Amino acid sequence: MVVTARPSYSRVKTALKAINDHPQLELQLVVAASALLDRYGTAVNYMEADGFTIAARVFNVLEGENLTAMAKTTGLGILELASVFERLKPDAVMTIADRFETIATAIAASYMNIPLIHIQGGEVTGNIDEKVRHAITKLSDLHLVSSVKARERVVRMGEFEDKVFHTGCPSIDLAHDVRENPGFNFDPFAKYGGVGVENFDLSDPYLVVMQHPVTTEHSQARKHIEITLDAIRELDMPTFWFWPNVDAGSDGTSKGIRVYREKHELDKVRFFKNMEPQDFLRLITNSACLIGNSSVGIRESAYLGIPVVNIGSRQAGRERGANVIDTTYDKREIIRAVQQHLSHGKYPSDTIYGDATAGTQIAELCATQPLHFHKILSY
Amino acid sequence: MVVTARPSYSRVKTALKAINDHPQLELQLVVAASALLDRYGTAVNYMEADGFTIAARVFNVLEGENLTAMAKTTGLGILELASVFERLKPDAVMTIADRFETIATAIAASYMNIPLIHIQGGEVTGNIDEKVRHAITKLSDLHLVSSVKARERVVRMGEFEDKVFHTGCPSIDLAHDVRENPGFNFDPFAKYGGVGVENFDLSDPYLVVMQHPVTTEHSQARKHIEITLDAIRELDMPTFWFWPNVDAGSDGTSKGIRVYREKHELDKVRFFKNMEPQDFLRLITNSACLIGNSSVGIRESAYLGIPVVNIGSRQAGRERGANVIDTTYDKREIIRAVQQHLSHGKYPSDTIYGDATAGTQIAELCATQPLHFHKILSY
Amino acid sequence: MVVTARPSYSRVKTALKAINDHPQLELQLVVAASALLDRYGTAVNYMEADGFTIAARVFNVLEGENLTAMAKTTGLGILELASVFERLKPDAVMTIADRFETIATAIAASYMNIPLIHIQGGEVTGNIDEKVRHAITKLSDLHLVSSVKARERVVRMGEFEDKVFHTGCPSIDLAHDVRENPGFNFDPFAKYGGVGVENFDLSDPYLVVMQHPVTTEHSQARKHIEITLDAIRELDMPTFWFWPNVDAGSDGTSKGIRVYREKHELDKVRFFKNMEPQDFLRLITNSACLIGNSSVGIRESAYLGIPVVNIGSRQAGRERGANVIDTTYDKREIIRAVQQHLSHGKYPSDTIYGDATAGTQIAELCATQPLHFHKILSY
Amino acid sequence: MVVTARPSYSRVKTALKAINDHPQLELQLVVAASALLDRYGTAVNYMEADGFTIAARVFNVLEGENLTAMAKTTGLGILELASVFERLKPDAVMTIADRFETIATAIAASYMNIPLIHIQGGEVTGNIDEKVRHAITKLSDLHLVSSVKARERVVRMGEFEDKVFHTGCPSIDLAHDVRENPGFNFDPFAKYGGVGVENFDLSDPYLVVMQHPVTTEHSQARKHIEITLDAIRELDMPTFWFWPNVDAGSDGTSKGIRVYREKHELDKVRFFKNMEPQDFLRLITNSACLIGNSSVGIRESAYLGIPVVNIGSRQAGRERGANVIDTTYDKREIIRAVQQHLSHGKYPSDTIYGDATAGTQIAELCATQPLHFHKILSY
Repeated sequence: MVVTARPSYSRVKTALKAINDHPQLELQLVVAASALLDRYGTAVNYMEADGFTIAARVFNVLEGENLTAMAKTTGLGILELASVFERLKPDAVMTIADRFETIATAIAASYMNIPLIHIQGGEVTGNIDEKVRHAITKLSDLHLVSSVKARERVVRMGEFEDKVFHTGCPSIDLAHDVRENPGFNFDPFAKYGGVGVENFDLSDPYLVVMQHPVTTEHSQARKHIEITLDAIRELDMPTFWFWPNVDAGSDGTSKGIRVYREKHELDKVRFFKNMEPQDFLRLITNSACLIGNSSVGIRESAYLGIPVVNIGSRQAGRERGANVIDTTYDKREIIRAVQQHLSHGKYPSDTIYGDATAGTQIAELCATQPLHFHKILSY
Repeated sequence: MVVTARPSYSRVKTALKAINDHPQLELQLVVAASALLDRYGTAVNYMEADGFTIAARVFNVLEGENLTAMAKTTGLGILELASVFERLKPDAVMTIADRFETIATAIAASYMNIPLIHIQGGEVTGNIDEKVRHAITKLSDLHLVSSVKARERVVRMGEFEDKVFHTGCPSIDLAHDVRENPGFNFDPFAKYGGVGVENFDLSDPYLVVMQHPVTTEHSQARKHIEITLDAIRELDMPTFWFWPNVDAGSDGTSKGIRVYREKHELDKVRFFKNMEPQDFLRLITNSACLIGNSSVGIRESAYLGIPVVNIGSRQAGRERGANVIDTTYDKREIIRAVQQHLSHGKYPSDTIYGDATAGTQIAELCATQPLHFHKILSY
Repeated sequence: MVVTARPSYSRVKTALKAINDHPQLELQLVVAASALLDRYGTAVNYMEADGFTIAARVFNVLEGENLTAMAKTTGLGILELASVFERLKPDAVMTIADRFETIATAIAASYMNIPLIHIQGGEVTGNIDEKVRHAITKLSDLHLVSSVKARERVVRMGEFEDKVFHTGCPSIDLAHDVRENPGFNFDPFAKYGGVGVENFDLSDPYLVVMQHPVTTEHSQARKHIEITLDAIRELDMPTFWFWPNVDAGSDGTSKGIRVYREKHELDKVRFFKNMEPQDFLRLITNSACLIGNSSVGIRESAYLGIPVVNIGSRQAGRERGANVIDTTYDKREIIRAVQQHLSHGKYPSDTIYGDATAGTQIAELCATQPLHFHKILSY
Repeated sequence: MVVTARPSYSRVKTALKAINDHPQLELQLVVAASALLDRYGTAVNYMEADGFTIAARVFNVLEGENLTAMAKTTGLGILELASVFERLKPDAVMTIADRFETIATAIAASYMNIPLIHIQGGEVTGNIDEKVRHAITKLSDLHLVSSVKARERVVRMGEFEDKVFHTGCPSIDLAHDVRENPGFNFDPFAKYGGVGVENFDLSDPYLVVMQHPVTTEHSQARKHIEITLDAIRELDMPTFWFWPNVDAGSDGTSKGIRVYREKHELDKVRFFKNMEPQDFLRLITNSACLIGNSSVGIRESAYLGIPVVNIGSRQAGRERGANVIDTTYDKREIIRAVQQHLSHGKYPSDTIYGDATAGTQIAELCATQPLHFHKILSY
């Protein structure tokens, strides 16, 4: 398994645990790209804290706030992962979703004749991720997808039906635990520090914001984040805000936040870099509303019934439950959507992205599915 | 346009010429990988001789007769091509077919938000090329395919119908010229040198052999080539033999030939490294039979009606005309197939891969199609 | 000329201008590494504002706050610069000083048989720079050094006497202009923004701080910066503080400053990312004292007679004038040294690092020295 | 220890054995570059046959018969070796001599704060190796040199006397064994195959040729080798000829030999790719004369008293014994020198490059010398 970013880890954590615990499987965890970097929360530390052994660390993020650096980061990823795979000699390589650098994993594995397992193929969003996700599907030998529609799409793309399994998304497994044990079992301020306003009362209604730059609209990242910042300032509620992930434009978003903080009072906002997945789910489960463009708003939040305001195009095309209100980059629209959720409250659970058994199913399929490398189109 | 190998150049030459000549288009020709290397015939020299200006040269072939080196060559290709695209700032990037290193072109372009045009998508073969070809389809914005069936497949994979055009293969355009002007207009011995037996009479029936290693059967490359060498030795006819192209295993094949030559008399065989595409087509048009696993045997030979013995799995799944007899790696089978062709003679022309207008169509589509970068699955 | 960082540019600016203006020379300016990055002040913008045309931009900084990333950044630099030199075909390549990534320039040039000109060889400091600087000397064909002692050392290392010229350091040329025209001709707050305390009165005595991480003491970078921050807080004078440059540990220093700012009041400090060289010299010329470990404190400040407190080992071994007081990482020592300077005031000018004619001399030598590639030890 | 080529291995073999056998030392052998490639004799196979365990294999040779590829091969070497060193965490890294790619070892180690031990510094030759060798000296912390003069030079370059040890060259250790046990204990034809003339009688006088391309005279490599081929053809004696090593121009030399063989009868010459060091020494010890530009002619041959004709500039500047006659690239000169040696016969042993205790001395110094990373010039 190659993990390249904080949110990817969160999303496969239960699958990794199930694989690690499976008597017929051996997990080799390779950590790469932003998952190793301090600027993006050093996700690798959480993996080790969760008891995983790191088989290899791959530094491949080339600095430069531009698309050329994204391409080169991918090229470097192939160079480095090829060495890692040659050394570890895995029986299969697993990758997840559609971050730009994950295609490096897919290419290194498939070019080295190692069977490739892809989690979360077949979804539709609508940016560069779209190209990456489906290209990885075409390089993969076994597909473990999150929704019924995703399975249909992967099969229609020419993959053989008996190689595409609807397991649901392992991120729902984590959400399930949180639903079973609601309420806080940690103090976010004490445990995660962060900067901005001092502790506020967690029993009052609060908001959570997580907004990433949208790659193909790179130059606008800063403008977009300012609109959300304006909306939050006007809503004037206690708010947890999470810094964005690495991507071209990341610094546009991050810088937008930094400059805004110098110029404006944000006296009810606390900024965090990162949080353990379980803690984050607990935080949003207890929140009045989740705002931004994180896929957590679409996936885990469906299962957890959390009110979500989804801004802009980043999640376009993804199936969603009744808990999501979509808005454009418009302050008034965002404020109105939050207020609508505040008066509505929680939504019923929706299993559109899984019924909380994905991790176990994935481990079992890895153990039992014959792994071939060779494949052709089904038509 | 990025060209990475000798046969790829041959296959798009008429499209390149049509683009170069089109009043609304400007051609920037980037030459990479084996197309620059002496060991593989230095295809770049032919491009310059044909009047093309080289916009950039990209050396990215990592030595090492193994799959790791293939993966790393691809990673290096991305690193280098990203720099090239940043400097040249093309409005669109064009790539062709499915050689492993072409995915570097596709990734560099699509990650840099440059529209990607793919020639020869949608075909079915059955090795690593299969994965590469369809992954490039998913990264591409405009698809210019060679056959009716290929168009159907690309659309079924989720590409929008109005972005997939059946132009035929530009290699057929070249074949057309040769068909219109049969007979030799050059002396292969004088023009190309080569090693082995001295000149033989071109008016006598002769064979042509071109056999590449099959990537995923890497270790067997040498055994395979020896079977063909045995068959040719037994057939004992004048034979033109072409060295294989770069690929993991290439050295297996090349070495197989070299060692065989040291041990056995091959007193009717002349070995060549390379030939200009037109000359090669002329040579096979006048031959009694083409033997090996080159795609020329499947595509151009269909249009030209040349008897072809296709050995092994390299062309598996490709549509073919009545002119092809398929064999396994078996000396007796190969000999029998050649003899059957010898007694049959030429076949009628088949336009399955195009009607010789592909170059013009491709240039026209490049000039008129709106090039968008953004795309999603059609379903 | 390859420039990889903000301070390097400042140091060669007059030589670049003199080369650009020389009738027999053509300047090709390649900008690489941190000189392109927003985090380090985007020095390339200043170069363009100064009227230089950028021949190529090389992104080669690999993220990762560790030594492995430094090594890999250098490897990537060679990969990229080899392509750049192949395209630009320079008659000679010029590099400066001893930053770790400059050896990439030296290797790419010398391996491609391009004569290499090195500015500022032969100095002694005492960290990894020491190794880099002398290794570049051994790869170089023409040496343009800053001091008499530096020339002696380069010759003793086996370079031929007639290839080593004592030109002085071009940074002194800039300092000369400032000395001739003292006083402010710009408003640092209006022109450079920055964060922290609002405008203060520039006619009052103020301090300037510039402290870089020391590479081989990587893990201590944060502790070191906190000592200086403590000292400055206690001195309680108006202070201009400059963020450090890229290096392993850079983020240690930067983070140290960021965290300190969250925890402590620094109500007389203004933080800047970068400043045009001339403006920076003007700022320190008018300051009461320059504090930190920048080489500007050793070189330009000698000529300008600025009181300098030099902290730690970064400039160890460099010849220095009477204007420098050295301290260890100790708050009390630093405060005492500043106070001593405050009661002493300015120092007389010292030409130890040049007499302000280096730029012209360098251009003239480039134009007149025969450039050979081949060389051996002189003994 | 990083070994990048066949002849380097041969030269340090006894030191590697002594380190491996030393109770306080652990050997981690990294094999890189041409030492892994079939085209250059796959030296790694001999290492394994000699009982060494390979800790890592690094493929970093970029194809392309040009200087740009040499530079890029070096850049790739740094990228790869940094990963290897990060994984293996050696207490010190050892490198040898001056091949262009060895500077990658030196940079990766020194940038990662790993003490660097350099074998065979301080020698003088006179091509690109000259720059590489001395630059590595400046990056190294401990110097184990081959001759008295070499030690003097390293010290004069500014290295501290107590860090430079005159051990002699470990290649002499191997030579010693052969001298103690003269005569053949293997059949070169049976053991190594090769191509060309069939077995000849080893008790008759025979010649051995080993001629490498000279990097900075790249374009002339082919012309040079033809002169030697002409000379050998005219001498008309049984001859063992060894293919050259990888280098820019290597293919010039190799191709020169291949083309020559097609055109001319060389009916007393047998061509070999590689030979185990001991066997090679035995072969030349029993030969009438060694011809070419291999350093074996200068070093081991001095100890063994073998008559040597050294052609061209490749060994210029190296100290040599009475057994060497130098010639230019001139057929008549070469023939005359061979004839002079044939009438003279063997020379007395000369310990200029060591007294056959280098391996043991090197291991002992590695075990006992304090290894510091930090250093400055001694003056």
